[in-house]
Amino acid sequence: MELAAGIDFGGTFAKIGLVERGGRVRSRAQVAMDPRESFEGIVEPVAETLRGLIANTASGEKLVTIGIGTPGFIDKTEGVLLGGCENIPSLQKRSVQQYLGKAFGVPAFAENDATSAAAGELAFGAGRNYSNFVFITIGTAIGGGLVLGGRVYRGWRGFAGEIGHLCVNRNGPWCNCGSRGCFEQYASGTAILRVYSEKLRKRGENPGSSLTAREVVERARAGDPCARDTLEEAGMWIAQAFGSLLNVLDLEACIVGGGVSEAGEILLEPIRRHLPDHCWRQTGSGVIVRTAELRNDAGILGAAAQAFERLE
Amino acid sequence: MELAAGIDFGGTFAKIGLVERGGRVRSRAQVAMDPRESFEGIVEPVAETLRGLIANTASGEKLVTIGIGTPGFIDKTEGVLLGGCENIPSLQKRSVQQYLGKAFGVPAFAENDATSAAAGELAFGAGRNYSNFVFITIGTAIGGGLVLGGRVYRGWRGFAGEIGHLCVNRNGPWCNCGSRGCFEQYASGTAILRVYSEKLRKRGENPGSSLTAREVVERARAGDPCARDTLEEAGMWIAQAFGSLLNVLDLEACIVGGGVSEAGEILLEPIRRHLPDHCWRQTGSGVIVRTAELRNDAGILGAAAQAFERLE
Repeated sequence: MELAAGIDFGGTFAKIGLVERGGRVRSRAQVAMDPRESFEGIVEPVAETLRGLIANTASGEKLVTIGIGTPGFIDKTEGVLLGGCENIPSLQKRSVQQYLGKAFGVPAFAENDATSAAAGELAFGAGRNYSNFVFITIGTAIGGGLVLGGRVYRGWRGFAGEIGHLCVNRNGPWCNCGSRGCFEQYASGTAILRVYSEKLRKRGENPGSSLTAREVVERARAGDPCARDTLEEAGMWIAQAFGSLLNVLDLEACIVGGGVSEAGEILLEPIRRHLPDHCWRQTGSGVIVRTAELRNDAGILGAAAQAFERLE
Repeated sequence: MELAAGIDFGGTFAKIGLVERGGRVRSRAQVAMDPRESFEGIVEPVAETLRGLIANTASGEKLVTIGIGTPGFIDKTEGVLLGGCENIPSLQKRSVQQYLGKAFGVPAFAENDATSAAAGELAFGAGRNYSNFVFITIGTAIGGGLVLGGRVYRGWRGFAGEIGHLCVNRNGPWCNCGSRGCFEQYASGTAILRVYSEKLRKRGENPGSSLTAREVVERARAGDPCARDTLEEAGMWIAQAFGSLLNVLDLEACIVGGGVSEAGEILLEPIRRHLPDHCWRQTGSGVIVRTAELRNDAGILGAAAQAFERLE
């Protein structure tokens, strides 16, 4: 059986999986990341771990391709990481794609991690019934990916899908992308945590320094009114961004992933309720707003799915 | 030789052309439109005029397909105009595509007129060297079309490309699309005329009731400071919309057509100057901002180009 390696580089771990064409993860491992390490110091332990997984496969099983997801802008021909990956600086200007391709003697493909996760949802998850959809992943920041006409859309150079940097408030704060009032400033985990903490402070409560966006989501699920209002507000901004995208791209579905999407209907219901205020009736009608399905495996599965697809 | 008919329905005229595969318009005509007429009262004179053009072709020349552009949302399978065409109400809920396809016994394809014009620029005009671009046409309103991966992008139902309804100011005035602060509210011919007239009034001058956006463009070309400031302001809004689109779609070029684009560099220069404030350095670098080429023939040529392409 042919297997693809799916590798998902994050700020603290690299996740590695051997994946069947049908989407079953046969084996998996993870490697702790030290972002201060050199390029080889980061990539070689990943390669070593992958060799270990391959050594444990049955006879007749074979690695045929490697898919890689990393943060940032990845050039779509050579796989060079051209920027936007400040968390893992030694990956910048280098190509994990070329390194691992050579190391294993198989085709390798690197891609932005959120675009890769969108590919995973298309192949095996919440997007498998839709040919045109936007996927956002709400974590510390907001990542995004687009599936257009049944395929992952990568754009001119491979940089497409920066949904978090759609301007939703032209007078808003400056963003690290160089623009102002980006969507990410209002609906990321960071923003949700900031808004909720401010709401608590105004009510004389101390949010504490260890609070996380996931905890805000938990509190909303438990009925905390400030947490619910915070997610309502985030939902309104998400609806604005989705509305503009529906007018521009005429999409069938909007899929929300990442830690904050664990809020489920508490977040989705306000998005759906506000959506008609932000698009044409024609482009908004019938559109599905739902959560992603693959959760922790999205990165591995998406990278593997893209690698398999590009083999063909 | 095989010919396509390209038909461009506007509020006052329908333009009709017989077009070669290479983009040469062999013959053309136009029919005055009375928007109060019935569906047949509008479409049959167009068919009759097309019959006249065909009757005058040489032997061996043959109509093989018909392309049609109209304002509004056109369902991409049946060609039914589903809304957004208030100027020609009797076209609504009907299919010019089916009517003309039956009348001439050839495949016919209807499409939004701005998307059709983008197809024309792709095949024969300013977009022929780009695989990923946005096209906007600035007239009374702002129409738009997208070319992604070398093909016209139509979206889930055929409604994509409503660039004029990207939200650029969430606190802005309500738009006829049902959203607020749409791009069209700030950079259309209507907006340019409003801003310029207001500037004149504030300076004690009467803009007069017959002033048009084209005249504002003419005055800017002649050096009128208020007219130039008006186009500078429009350019800033266009840069914001383009910046968001570059972040989302990673485009190679942004092409500006329609009457207002006659301003040329007076409009393009501020767009280019402001663009870096509205996108990542990565998605903005190397992007071409230019005017469209096909001008009055864009509709005919685009409709014909799309019709030829879909034959294959």
